[in-house]
Amino acid sequence: MSVIYWDNNATTPCAPEVVEAMEPYWNVKFANASSSHLAGRTAMIAIKKAREQVATLANCLPKEIVFTSGATESNNILFLGILLTPNLERKQIVVSAIEHKSILEPAKLLEKHGFDIVKLPVTPNGVVDLEQAQKLITSKSLLVSVQAANNEIGTIQPIKELCNFAHDAGAYFHTDAAQTLGKVPFDVDDINCDFASFSAHKMYGPKGVGALFIRGGAKRWPWEKPLNGGGQEMGIRPGTSNVPAIVGFGKACEIACSSNCNRYVEVLKHRELLEEEILNRFNGSLINANMEQRLPTVVSVTFSDIDADVLIDSLIGLFISNGAACSGSTLTQSHVLAELGVLAEEAKRTIRISIGAETSYDEIVSGLNLLSNACSEIKQCFKESNNA
Amino acid sequence: MSVIYWDNNATTPCAPEVVEAMEPYWNVKFANASSSHLAGRTAMIAIKKAREQVATLANCLPKEIVFTSGATESNNILFLGILLTPNLERKQIVVSAIEHKSILEPAKLLEKHGFDIVKLPVTPNGVVDLEQAQKLITSKSLLVSVQAANNEIGTIQPIKELCNFAHDAGAYFHTDAAQTLGKVPFDVDDINCDFASFSAHKMYGPKGVGALFIRGGAKRWPWEKPLNGGGQEMGIRPGTSNVPAIVGFGKACEIACSSNCNRYVEVLKHRELLEEEILNRFNGSLINANMEQRLPTVVSVTFSDIDADVLIDSLIGLFISNGAACSGSTLTQSHVLAELGVLAEEAKRTIRISIGAETSYDEIVSGLNLLSNACSEIKQCFKESNNA
Repeated sequence: MSVIYWDNNATTPCAPEVVEAMEPYWNVKFANASSSHLAGRTAMIAIKKAREQVATLANCLPKEIVFTSGATESNNILFLGILLTPNLERKQIVVSAIEHKSILEPAKLLEKHGFDIVKLPVTPNGVVDLEQAQKLITSKSLLVSVQAANNEIGTIQPIKELCNFAHDAGAYFHTDAAQTLGKVPFDVDDINCDFASFSAHKMYGPKGVGALFIRGGAKRWPWEKPLNGGGQEMGIRPGTSNVPAIVGFGKACEIACSSNCNRYVEVLKHRELLEEEILNRFNGSLINANMEQRLPTVVSVTFSDIDADVLIDSLIGLFISNGAACSGSTLTQSHVLAELGVLAEEAKRTIRISIGAETSYDEIVSGLNLLSNACSEIKQCFKESNNA
Repeated sequence: MSVIYWDNNATTPCAPEVVEAMEPYWNVKFANASSSHLAGRTAMIAIKKAREQVATLANCLPKEIVFTSGATESNNILFLGILLTPNLERKQIVVSAIEHKSILEPAKLLEKHGFDIVKLPVTPNGVVDLEQAQKLITSKSLLVSVQAANNEIGTIQPIKELCNFAHDAGAYFHTDAAQTLGKVPFDVDDINCDFASFSAHKMYGPKGVGALFIRGGAKRWPWEKPLNGGGQEMGIRPGTSNVPAIVGFGKACEIACSSNCNRYVEVLKHRELLEEEILNRFNGSLINANMEQRLPTVVSVTFSDIDADVLIDSLIGLFISNGAACSGSTLTQSHVLAELGVLAEEAKRTIRISIGAETSYDEIVSGLNLLSNACSEIKQCFKESNNA
């Protein structure tokens, strides 16, 4: 049975070219990239190429890319680095209220250790309120960290403006671009950010690899290095280099670069069709954050009368989500939806559809039919059990 | 050209079964293991199986295995957890003087933050001096961390006794078992350690994955959780689970388990032959730490008149090392050799040979011949350039 995967914000499949690129590195060119012999140098050359591929996509210098195990680790390195630096003059960290948990949770740890965490509010459409932000980012701020795009509702944040506010206040600017790199143009030079976090597995690369962009490279790292060991990745991220995954990430960036994000132009049309049809077919349904610039892939829908968990369980052959994958979403209400003013009860009726670069018109039609059928069946069941 | 890889302590090739086991997880069973839909649950079931496979090899409960990106990260989580815990009564950390850098460097960070780091000396044969250790592990000690086997010279440490000393003093005991798991029997229950670190890529699993054993599981974690995010791995190691790599690690453990480390019995004979022949062929050469119980795979040789870097560069078709891969070894002298009393000048003439589970008698003979030829050629060159 062919299935439809509409949970690409949780993770994407590896592109076939990525799997192929990694293949020799499992047990042919498998050496440790830090070994000084020829096999080691071969592995190091492969990392060098991947670093160039990632840097080209993000528009930075290769030396500004530090490979990590993913954006969660990149975010943690940044926050732990600050936490462990003694005698900081500024101890205020500014984040948006709808950041991913890998920003909000490290921020909580900093708060526990005496840092002041300021959360930037968002408009009901899920975009950081720039007027408020300008007031809240001050000469007390050490770092401003705002995601490039939201993982649950897809809103693209005004990071260029926020970066300006940060710099005007003498603060550093970081953006978690896990959901952005490779999907829409993302250019660290244009944004002028100091740091950025990336994950390969959100853009058809492998899991277990990502990067931290550091403007000027590791030598410009202003804080303590929280992870320590063999000195790999310019001392910022020790541990034997994950050569196959790094090569795979490089290839995924090369593919994204060559398409120049054009592969997502069609996707946007499909998303618009999807939204239109959802509003037509499901009475009283709402598209969250539907006014703003969003990723071409994400639709957040609140139904009027369908429980998201029941729907997800009922859907055979269509994979969608009820929020961020990492939240174990049935247990805790989405903080993102709450910030938009979505009530807890409404959040329970909210699904996240995240289509992919390859999603076709036919797939949209089939997926919509699967959604319609599942919703009808649930209502029928509910009706029967009420009548029984 | 077929090559001989004798740098297995730096990293090993993935076993073909490991590559095969990972294969479906790249782009068929690729979902996020934290997604609540069927595809997500399928990924989570794969992780569950891998957790059982690792736990079986280490002889612990599956819930006591936290998947990380490797032993370096496991070690860092442990040390950072301690560093970030406020109001600790004990602030002394005891490590051996010949630990891997992923222990010694995090220990330095703790020292910078007011912790007292005590280094256990080793005998000239590279084994922790138990008499000294018993005196140095006291009621001030919070954690004792000693590697199960050394990465450069292969000595197996008396961790069971050291664990007893630690527990008698009311301290926790951790062992970095990156070089041990899957090579010689390693049983956390028998050792009675509280924590242990593992890496898959040292035992024919993939790079980028390892584990932290926590006795009693994450609920018994006594310290701050340094890495924060989506709550994966019982809150100890957040970030999207690296499903393919975890599956590969599980498979590597299953293979090691089924051989019950018997595959290394032959290897030990080969190592003994290798050592005998090296001493025969190279006048004045020495085997470091040759009196003690060592890993069956490792030989550390100091030549009387051959520079290790020149030898490694001259060897075509034979890959050996001049120390730990991660040290960028030509730049810094090995702290391990220094602790054995090896002089800096002697360390420059020292190579590490680390054979593998599959190393055959024929390979030993061929490798020895390549070594002999390279050494003769180097001497000849040297002689000619002196005469010129």
